[in-house]
Amino acid sequence: MKKVAVIMGSDSDLPVVEKCINELKKYGIPTEVHVYSAHRTPDEAIGFAKTAEENGFGVIISAAGKAAHLGGVLAANTVLPVVGIPIKASALDGMDALLSTVQMPPGIPVASIAIDGAKNAAIFAAEILAVSDEQLRIKLREERKKAHDAVIEKDAAVCAKFN
Amino acid sequence: MKKVAVIMGSDSDLPVVEKCINELKKYGIPTEVHVYSAHRTPDEAIGFAKTAEENGFGVIISAAGKAAHLGGVLAANTVLPVVGIPIKASALDGMDALLSTVQMPPGIPVASIAIDGAKNAAIFAAEILAVSDEQLRIKLREERKKAHDAVIEKDAAVCAKFN
Amino acid sequence: MKKVAVIMGSDSDLPVVEKCINELKKYGIPTEVHVYSAHRTPDEAIGFAKTAEENGFGVIISAAGKAAHLGGVLAANTVLPVVGIPIKASALDGMDALLSTVQMPPGIPVASIAIDGAKNAAIFAAEILAVSDEQLRIKLREERKKAHDAVIEKDAAVCAKFN
Amino acid sequence: MKKVAVIMGSDSDLPVVEKCINELKKYGIPTEVHVYSAHRTPDEAIGFAKTAEENGFGVIISAAGKAAHLGGVLAANTVLPVVGIPIKASALDGMDALLSTVQMPPGIPVASIAIDGAKNAAIFAAEILAVSDEQLRIKLREERKKAHDAVIEKDAAVCAKFN
Amino acid sequence: MKKVAVIMGSDSDLPVVEKCINELKKYGIPTEVHVYSAHRTPDEAIGFAKTAEENGFGVIISAAGKAAHLGGVLAANTVLPVVGIPIKASALDGMDALLSTVQMPPGIPVASIAIDGAKNAAIFAAEILAVSDEQLRIKLREERKKAHDAVIEKDAAVCAKFN
Amino acid sequence: MKKVAVIMGSDSDLPVVEKCINELKKYGIPTEVHVYSAHRTPDEAIGFAKTAEENGFGVIISAAGKAAHLGGVLAANTVLPVVGIPIKASALDGMDALLSTVQMPPGIPVASIAIDGAKNAAIFAAEILAVSDEQLRIKLREERKKAHDAVIEKDAAVCAKFN
Amino acid sequence: MKKVAVIMGSDSDLPVVEKCINELKKYGIPTEVHVYSAHRTPDEAIGFAKTAEENGFGVIISAAGKAAHLGGVLAANTVLPVVGIPIKASALDGMDALLSTVQMPPGIPVASIAIDGAKNAAIFAAEILAVSDEQLRIKLREERKKAHDAVIEKDAAVCAKFN
Amino acid sequence: MKKVAVIMGSDSDLPVVEKCINELKKYGIPTEVHVYSAHRTPDEAIGFAKTAEENGFGVIISAAGKAAHLGGVLAANTVLPVVGIPIKASALDGMDALLSTVQMPPGIPVASIAIDGAKNAAIFAAEILAVSDEQLRIKLREERKKAHDAVIEKDAAVCAKFN
Repeated sequence: MKKVAVIMGSDSDLPVVEKCINELKKYGIPTEVHVYSAHRTPDEAIGFAKTAEENGFGVIISAAGKAAHLGGVLAANTVLPVVGIPIKASALDGMDALLSTVQMPPGIPVASIAIDGAKNAAIFAAEILAVSDEQLRIKLREERKKAHDAVIEKDAAVCAKFN
Repeated sequence: MKKVAVIMGSDSDLPVVEKCINELKKYGIPTEVHVYSAHRTPDEAIGFAKTAEENGFGVIISAAGKAAHLGGVLAANTVLPVVGIPIKASALDGMDALLSTVQMPPGIPVASIAIDGAKNAAIFAAEILAVSDEQLRIKLREERKKAHDAVIEKDAAVCAKFN
Repeated sequence: MKKVAVIMGSDSDLPVVEKCINELKKYGIPTEVHVYSAHRTPDEAIGFAKTAEENGFGVIISAAGKAAHLGGVLAANTVLPVVGIPIKASALDGMDALLSTVQMPPGIPVASIAIDGAKNAAIFAAEILAVSDEQLRIKLREERKKAHDAVIEKDAAVCAKFN
Repeated sequence: MKKVAVIMGSDSDLPVVEKCINELKKYGIPTEVHVYSAHRTPDEAIGFAKTAEENGFGVIISAAGKAAHLGGVLAANTVLPVVGIPIKASALDGMDALLSTVQMPPGIPVASIAIDGAKNAAIFAAEILAVSDEQLRIKLREERKKAHDAVIEKDAAVCAKFN
Repeated sequence: MKKVAVIMGSDSDLPVVEKCINELKKYGIPTEVHVYSAHRTPDEAIGFAKTAEENGFGVIISAAGKAAHLGGVLAANTVLPVVGIPIKASALDGMDALLSTVQMPPGIPVASIAIDGAKNAAIFAAEILAVSDEQLRIKLREERKKAHDAVIEKDAAVCAKFN
Repeated sequence: MKKVAVIMGSDSDLPVVEKCINELKKYGIPTEVHVYSAHRTPDEAIGFAKTAEENGFGVIISAAGKAAHLGGVLAANTVLPVVGIPIKASALDGMDALLSTVQMPPGIPVASIAIDGAKNAAIFAAEILAVSDEQLRIKLREERKKAHDAVIEKDAAVCAKFN
Repeated sequence: MKKVAVIMGSDSDLPVVEKCINELKKYGIPTEVHVYSAHRTPDEAIGFAKTAEENGFGVIISAAGKAAHLGGVLAANTVLPVVGIPIKASALDGMDALLSTVQMPPGIPVASIAIDGAKNAAIFAAEILAVSDEQLRIKLREERKKAHDAVIEKDAAVCAKFN
Repeated sequence: MKKVAVIMGSDSDLPVVEKCINELKKYGIPTEVHVYSAHRTPDEAIGFAKTAEENGFGVIISAAGKAAHLGGVLAANTVLPVVGIPIKASALDGMDALLSTVQMPPGIPVASIAIDGAKNAAIFAAEILAVSDEQLRIKLREERKKAHDAVIEKDAAVCAKFN
């Protein structure tokens, strides 16, 4: 199976990003995690993106707050799909990171997940890999089933209390 | 090759969505286009999503404006990756569609492209399919090269004028 | 009397939604409460909406945060009035939920109450049922009178302190 | 059948509000239209609200732009359901009218429809009256069916062109 | 000297409004404070505004949060200047109250002070009364001088620490 | 009667500001109009403010777009009431000018009118002067009456068409 | 004198950027203009930044719309001051470009000018160079004087018309 | 070496501004710190700006919250580059200060750094002085190297934990 890279712009993003790493593990997806800043370590970030394909990666997840250029810098240097997690890390509650991530110009897409939506970034990466991996698709369906059943259980609890 | 579905919530979205359809053609990706409203034709939208996998689709692109629930409704009924295009179709200039598309709750991701970013939705879908398709990856690199060269040409024109 | 359904997208919405349930009780309105996620339990949410009319419901109140598609999903499957409560449940302080709830496209309305405005959703549902229920209208007027008198009392306290 | 009142704050709102009036006619709902400004004709607006119930109204639709206090002023003087249409009428594209309409304090609800969502205000009013009117409910279902079929037709046209 | 009325929409606004009351006292301005809700006690609010002129008031200060219609309701019923204090009292941090207060339609102005800007509302009311009151103007100049000197003192402290 | 100064930051604001000048004329208020930029002619702006009181002014109206510091610069140099008109003059539709005008720090108030609300600035200035001028108060009441009657006339026209 | 580089992300930014180029000419500052996209020509953008210092540049002006990563990409590769012009080039009126430009993380600043503020970027670059260039400072003062006099002339015209 | 002035509008800004002062020290840049309010001490603020050049300053850093006119007031009175730090100091989380700082009209630029971006203001000032100071440029490169190495170290720690 191809690997998923999880790149965060600062290790202060780790409490959010850890949910992404854990979710990828749940799907048994080989993962490599890095702290690469688009601005303080541009060469490393770019170098990683340029070699990601040959190094066996299938998807890159990028997490960054504030001006959040990391997703764009990675996407500019690879044709692998780049999934962005805008991090709430400033006075503007992540709106700056969301717009910096999602409003990419024509030609070089970054696909954005919700602000701090680390878990969904992992699931979306799994969905991408599952396009050509029947086993992973089955796993995704099983997790959907579990999420469904958890809601049904909560509904039962609420019903017992109020209905 | 797996097909890409392009679902728009209203045929008034077509002028924007057409850029997506054309871009998919450029990559030789088999495409199926539909108008399915999450609210006026929920059964058709859901039915499409539920059978998309068995019908040979690899990616679903969803385009919708205003409250823009279409991406979420499709994603709730498939484990295929759903890429959302928020359409500028209201007084709020697409900010409503962007938030409705991108702020999905944990468990069911929709990955959002820029407001009216139809061309990038197509490229991102191509990147997804290319994870397991070397030929498509080569094509993506070629298109990147062309986009690069077009900028260089424009730079030459600007240099000739100003430098 | 017709029943009011209170559907929340997640049981984490309960602390807010409980104010709605309590207010409905104050008016003696038969109420049924459920946790149905538009995305994790779409079939249950849709099934509820499709049968709500025949099951004796007159109004559906829908509470959801973030992308908040629940109101739209319910409204797409019933002609009963759907009243939405946008829940503050993300970095964006409920603005995402408000726009996702209120900006519905022509044809399928959801009527929105203030962010976290659970109590008002109950009162509005009561006002709807009261259109054909004189007793309930009297009860609404009585509660208005109490709310009025509570302000007058607070004014007296403030006057005593400052004037 | 009870009547629906359509009150607009200024006759400059008429081009938007007319869609509401026409939609109400489609459902055969008796309608009365007025221009009452919350600020320039407060007595008339309040007088209308205070007597609306005894004058045979079941629902009040309020359309206003900018600070948009009209819905609140009407709601403060009746227990009939008040449905607000925030009108795009200022530099702020209707966001001011949306917040002024929807963010009502606990006790006195106004239920808001989308900015300039005049048609949906009419449908929502019809849904309210239909709670106790089986004929109107049938009519609502028929219109839903027509809206559904119109989308299906557009889908066919798009399919013919692209698939 | 004419009196200043300080009307707040809810006694929960008091912690902010108290700064306004205290500031008015500092200028020796006769003040009357009330809790009148535009929606729960509309008759009292309107009654106050209609008789404010004959009751010896020169300025009305209105404090309200959320939809914040109070300033508009008062202004619609008097030609006395109404100064609005938008209160931060909702998920939207007072932006709703600011827009509801400041975006008044042509003909009936409410002049807005900063969100939670209670002290400035008092000073602005004093400035209004001082237009025809030389003594109050002198007092305003003295307070300006004190505010000036307080900054100069703080500058000295900062200079001592850093320069 | 004291004069009203109308200061605009740029003569490009004149099309909006002219409504203010005309409204002041309607009330017979002596008016002086200037173009003074807070940034390009700071000395003239400040000089005007410092001498406004002794030169017979009672109110200063300040109109400015974009960063809109003019109101603050004037208010910092006079204890006369300064009324700000935020002008829509940038990509941000006047939201920048509104916040720059209204969010003044404690001690130096500027009272803001709606974005481009030039007419209301004039009326508010008239209301300030009328605090000590019975004739002007009568004139304000007459204009209110006319505005009221104009709405009633429009209501009649709408009634004739739709009711 | 050191040169100023003007880098735009797309030649569609030229109509705005041309005002910057013209203003730099007014000050006699040697200027070099380029179209380099942060995403489509990252190597050229980075290469330019890395060699800018040795190539005789003193300031880099960066103009970009939408996600607007160009300023950050340039700043990450030089210690020359980078001045950003956020371009209004999307549905969001330049707010996306402003936040992407200004909200840079600690360590790598980009200093932002107003949305579409091309002329001010040139003046600010001139102010930077003038820190060590007395002649340029004199020129800046002369231009300030002209701007001042132009306002005074407009004030005279407005005075002649209204006072 | 020319000095850098750090002017804050209120001593309550000091906890943020202190990061700027400390960073300037790190570069050995002579610094002078002041508390000057644009509104409460306009003469001192203006006097400082008018004499800054002759007093040996090369750059002025201005920190202010809310309406944040300080940067504009300083820039209007000097041709030295003025760098603004918008301070988060109100209900609006610094968005008001950002727009008041960055949206300056043509002719008088203020270059804005991120909200509360005190450290970057210092680095940007250093970059300005370094245009004509090779030693400072070397120091800037060294600090960049340290920032780079710190990220690499954090990457190593994260790699050790997750890879």
